[in-house]
Amino acid sequence: MQTLLLSKEDVRENAEMADVIPAVREAFESYERGMAQMPAKSYIDLKQYNGDFRAMPAYLDTGDWDAAGLKWVNVHPDNSEKYGLPTVMGTMIYSDPETAVPISLMDGTELTMKRTGAAAAVATDELAIRDATTLGIVGAGIQSYTQVEAISEIRPIEEIVVSDLEETRTKQFIDHFADRFSVSAGDVSDAASCDVLSTVTPVRDPIVTLDDLGDHTHVNAMGADAEGKQELTNEVLLNAKITIDDHAQTTHSGEINVPYSDGTITDNDIYADLGEIIVGTKDGRTSDDGITVFDSTGLAIQDVATAHIAYHAAKENGNGTEFDLLGFANSQPAR
Amino acid sequence: MQTLLLSKEDVRENAEMADVIPAVREAFESYERGMAQMPAKSYIDLKQYNGDFRAMPAYLDTGDWDAAGLKWVNVHPDNSEKYGLPTVMGTMIYSDPETAVPISLMDGTELTMKRTGAAAAVATDELAIRDATTLGIVGAGIQSYTQVEAISEIRPIEEIVVSDLEETRTKQFIDHFADRFSVSAGDVSDAASCDVLSTVTPVRDPIVTLDDLGDHTHVNAMGADAEGKQELTNEVLLNAKITIDDHAQTTHSGEINVPYSDGTITDNDIYADLGEIIVGTKDGRTSDDGITVFDSTGLAIQDVATAHIAYHAAKENGNGTEFDLLGFANSQPAR
Repeated sequence: MQTLLLSKEDVRENAEMADVIPAVREAFESYERGMAQMPAKSYIDLKQYNGDFRAMPAYLDTGDWDAAGLKWVNVHPDNSEKYGLPTVMGTMIYSDPETAVPISLMDGTELTMKRTGAAAAVATDELAIRDATTLGIVGAGIQSYTQVEAISEIRPIEEIVVSDLEETRTKQFIDHFADRFSVSAGDVSDAASCDVLSTVTPVRDPIVTLDDLGDHTHVNAMGADAEGKQELTNEVLLNAKITIDDHAQTTHSGEINVPYSDGTITDNDIYADLGEIIVGTKDGRTSDDGITVFDSTGLAIQDVATAHIAYHAAKENGNGTEFDLLGFANSQPAR
Repeated sequence: MQTLLLSKEDVRENAEMADVIPAVREAFESYERGMAQMPAKSYIDLKQYNGDFRAMPAYLDTGDWDAAGLKWVNVHPDNSEKYGLPTVMGTMIYSDPETAVPISLMDGTELTMKRTGAAAAVATDELAIRDATTLGIVGAGIQSYTQVEAISEIRPIEEIVVSDLEETRTKQFIDHFADRFSVSAGDVSDAASCDVLSTVTPVRDPIVTLDDLGDHTHVNAMGADAEGKQELTNEVLLNAKITIDDHAQTTHSGEINVPYSDGTITDNDIYADLGEIIVGTKDGRTSDDGITVFDSTGLAIQDVATAHIAYHAAKENGNGTEFDLLGFANSQPAR
């Protein structure tokens, strides 16, 4: 029995967004139905290196398939400047729940981008207007690409407005998508007035105001991933229908964490968990709704669901590299 | 930048016990001095498969070196009978703490056996009589082998008595060690009267009594790894000097968990954490001591320390398989 190794390139090629989105949707559904296990992330905080590690284990059972695994991921903000390395890197162990064999070891960096884009698409599908054709992107870093890939899978996006302080990043983004969409650069309010907006920035203080937004804009607030971070003003949050991925994570380190911790926002201001909308306990967008916000922190179940897709597609496509990690080839398991 | 893959065979060959023991000792020291981080294990419990997964992240800084990583390990007791697979399998991600690059992915199964043996050796070195020449082994399963390898590194072991209910396992054990030691089969009391005893069984109810033990036997109680498991009678525990690896883990799922939870044993009956003896806050064996017990549950810091040894030795020996997990070879890190 071999372990299938999937590099970043393998994950990129095999985990196709059209398959990842429904798998992530099923993961949220399974979680909502109590068919998933997702212990709280555990952190290792290394102040001396200005970085941290997070262990994200999960299991989920959709009824059709189940999957288990763990992502080990870091945030080291100085990496780019000091070492020319990504701020965030991940490694995913994908295990057979029944036997616990580590079926696949894969890059968790590309995986994170894919599953994050997919979560935005699942939320957008429930919360954006049906005929959304315009997509705003605030923050043109690496996570912005899968926002476009994923959201354009579920809405007929034609026009994209990108807003970023760095010209190089903006140009790279436009060049990347110019052949498929009408893409232009703009300021925050140009992007924020689109039918759908994804904010994907590392800012600590809000940059999107209520005036910036269109009257029915659905916002995917993807950037906030730590205590003290916020991309949308309190006024936006207080005037929007807010859906969250997970109560514990969003109130601790998501878009709402700052106003939640100072009492500006309470549980009464949170409309739903995404899972509740998916299973139908609560409605998605109704004709009465104006601005909607999805607060995404990223859940371990999304990683496991995406790993499931990546692994099975790679097996089917004959991709990846077999490796005898556990030494089953040359030793009897039970000595 | 490549990730070094180490198979079970690679870990076995490169993590030499003579190097692992001092590294594990340093890990306990670092933990005792507050220079380590070890969040509680998180569990995923799959009753439908009679199995569980455990995520074990850790960081440690010895002053000379530091290391970070995570072991993802399972316990699936039906594996052997149902699938011919090991009950316990592990996968270890070994990361550079400074940049978080996953430097190495390695088999965590062999790693677990090595680090468990090493912990027993570190405790034995502090708690057994100096000229211990006899070693008893109760339970001749896969974990028993590294007990012998490790303990014979730090004591002049000449004679081994092995006790196991299964004749095949006993014979395999004897054959394996017959060229290096005088090995014989015996009952529990034959093994338990040796200078050093390691109990390495999956039993739930005690099998070693006070009468079985020698008057100065040091016992490494390695087997209990879950609530409700116990290898030594309460009478043994109440008459021994008890050293533990970690208070939270041992009282929850170690040798002392049953009598601790019903109040038979209290914190007053626990003599020391192993780290306290290593740093010198408390004495190891003194001339007044009779029976001593080390309650070992296995700590994530042991895994990280052992991974450190395995990785560096493999690099030095030119072993292992390089793999471009993160795709650094064919893409610019900052898109």
